[in-house]
Amino acid sequence: MNTARLIQNVRKETPLVHHITNYVTVNDCANITLAIGGSPIMADDIGEVEEITGIASSLVLNMGTLNQRTVPSMIAAGKKANEKGIPVVFDPVGAGVSRLRNETAKKILSEVKVSVLRGNISEIKFISGLEAQTRGVDASRTDEVQTESAKEIAKSLANRLDCVVAITGKTDIISDGKRIITIDNGHEKLSSITGTGCMCSSLIGAYVGANPNEIFEGTAVAIMTMGIAGELAFGGAEKLGNGNFRMAIHDEVSLMSAETIEKRGKANES
Amino acid sequence: MNTARLIQNVRKETPLVHHITNYVTVNDCANITLAIGGSPIMADDIGEVEEITGIASSLVLNMGTLNQRTVPSMIAAGKKANEKGIPVVFDPVGAGVSRLRNETAKKILSEVKVSVLRGNISEIKFISGLEAQTRGVDASRTDEVQTESAKEIAKSLANRLDCVVAITGKTDIISDGKRIITIDNGHEKLSSITGTGCMCSSLIGAYVGANPNEIFEGTAVAIMTMGIAGELAFGGAEKLGNGNFRMAIHDEVSLMSAETIEKRGKANES
Amino acid sequence: MNTARLIQNVRKETPLVHHITNYVTVNDCANITLAIGGSPIMADDIGEVEEITGIASSLVLNMGTLNQRTVPSMIAAGKKANEKGIPVVFDPVGAGVSRLRNETAKKILSEVKVSVLRGNISEIKFISGLEAQTRGVDASRTDEVQTESAKEIAKSLANRLDCVVAITGKTDIISDGKRIITIDNGHEKLSSITGTGCMCSSLIGAYVGANPNEIFEGTAVAIMTMGIAGELAFGGAEKLGNGNFRMAIHDEVSLMSAETIEKRGKANES
Repeated sequence: MNTARLIQNVRKETPLVHHITNYVTVNDCANITLAIGGSPIMADDIGEVEEITGIASSLVLNMGTLNQRTVPSMIAAGKKANEKGIPVVFDPVGAGVSRLRNETAKKILSEVKVSVLRGNISEIKFISGLEAQTRGVDASRTDEVQTESAKEIAKSLANRLDCVVAITGKTDIISDGKRIITIDNGHEKLSSITGTGCMCSSLIGAYVGANPNEIFEGTAVAIMTMGIAGELAFGGAEKLGNGNFRMAIHDEVSLMSAETIEKRGKANES
Repeated sequence: MNTARLIQNVRKETPLVHHITNYVTVNDCANITLAIGGSPIMADDIGEVEEITGIASSLVLNMGTLNQRTVPSMIAAGKKANEKGIPVVFDPVGAGVSRLRNETAKKILSEVKVSVLRGNISEIKFISGLEAQTRGVDASRTDEVQTESAKEIAKSLANRLDCVVAITGKTDIISDGKRIITIDNGHEKLSSITGTGCMCSSLIGAYVGANPNEIFEGTAVAIMTMGIAGELAFGGAEKLGNGNFRMAIHDEVSLMSAETIEKRGKANES
Repeated sequence: MNTARLIQNVRKETPLVHHITNYVTVNDCANITLAIGGSPIMADDIGEVEEITGIASSLVLNMGTLNQRTVPSMIAAGKKANEKGIPVVFDPVGAGVSRLRNETAKKILSEVKVSVLRGNISEIKFISGLEAQTRGVDASRTDEVQTESAKEIAKSLANRLDCVVAITGKTDIISDGKRIITIDNGHEKLSSITGTGCMCSSLIGAYVGANPNEIFEGTAVAIMTMGIAGELAFGGAEKLGNGNFRMAIHDEVSLMSAETIEKRGKANES
């Protein structure tokens, strides 16, 4: 992967990333998009989403606080993105938790051509049609499947949906249906604050918005960026509270250099 | 109170705390729930709230940015929680400020069996049917009633509603209708940032979710946790800005130990 | 300008600032209002906005995440503010980006008497009827017009709308249609985080709420407060990440003194 070029493109192009997302982590999503060098725009009213997607470089759909008003907005924006040929990142937060989420995930995947699907193992298993032990919006402990099994799930689902599938967790797995990249960056503390998954999807939105012909690689480097930021944010601290850890993540993404990603990145293609 | 056991249970059980809350402080609520060891899930669509409550350990209803779409969601989720037997924490933000809030508070209290009602003195006085000088969402200055009078209000309302009533302020007062606990932890600076009341309700949600048979004690320790975090966050600083103070609160809750609560807690039962 | 009196009034009066605003930066808006000494209340349901405005000192309307549910709320609250004679601050986020935003901006300006209109150059140009190169919610690079030209736009629009117009950017321009003040405070890093424009509008809401007879001066000092906070937040750092920069802005606004504003303020009236 030409990591340096991928991140440099984000900073050069300042891709406009249209988000239809939840109200819990939306501020983190906007700020992390700015931190990596993109430009966020959050707009969810059916009366304007097509126009907004029409000027955007990529679209991020996030089901975090799903409500029935914005489902048609997600579909309309997604179709516009498809028509225009810009990448769509889909984050099926809480898939498996309720019928509304399950049906919405199904609807989006059937009506919109998604470029990248990113979720935790519980969500991705559910979408794969496998029985997942979903428990809230965080990955279930009992779903900490073996990496080998998760690789198969990612690859097979990527083939079926013809998109890049990313399962983030202790080891991140990204597949385009042929290749598989695993990433071993990150810090366990990332799961102790809200929004790290959402922010990861926003970073993917910025990377693939600026690198629309390198969706697979862009997704991998975005996830690596988040993981490395987590490592650097914790740093050598013996203990670090959640508030300052969260701010440090924003710091590290904004200060992230191509060199740091190249030096610290732990990606393996298989 | 067996403080140590109460907080240890939160960390052991990681209670799933379903919030139907406002969009101003929702991120703080999610992060503080994680910081104490719970797992937050925010979902407010009528199409899924019952299912979400169905997998939760407790439910937090917060009227901060009340809107007519989510009132039926609050009622439906509340009824489900009652049916299932999990605790409901109700934070009547801004009760007394508008008819919509007054009627909603009344509706929730009449249709849902609430386990804990937490508010500032203005809100609780209003709900008690007393004339409160409500001014916005912060406690009115003219409502800084004497602690003795507030104790009576809390106890009497707790009896009437058959729940735990918590009035937070300079001195916090918690009553289950029989007993009264007062807490003298906290820092005056807590009122200079938004969300400390909401976060307190979220902490209560986590504590009572993990300790469903100790609602009164769980509520008291949750409020103590918030107060002690405020003290430690300010620390020995001569002056501290609001931004870093806010992050330090999240830090201190995430680093809070049973020992610290036991050592610093200033609770008196009367 | 009697800067000292203007900020002291905010702290003495603790003006209640009613916001109908977006869910991206709403927490920052609430916290910055508290930091300067005001009291924020966020409420957007048509069932209560008039009552809330009825007890407020000023009203801030912000189109950040505009949706059709809250447009009637904005109009109703605006009319109530006019009837009551309290200042209305209008932040037309993203004007020029979509028909919904354009029509809403037009509707608000025709049905509500706005006291202060604050936007970036793209937004203000669009509202002036000039062709703006709007791109998302951030000022377009191609719209970095010369200060002289921007002054003309501000003055002429202020005359037409009979209000104070503020164009914030590298140099901030404030006009009441007769006088023009330019402000050269601020830090380029302010554009790398979300919400600095929205926070600026909230600060204006607090200043004009406490100084309703000095709308022009109050607006200028509010903008200066934000700029100086940005300078102090960055401080002498060689590099500073976005997370800690953002928290430092909140710190500096909360610690801002009349003396600091008087000493560092770079305002020129022309």
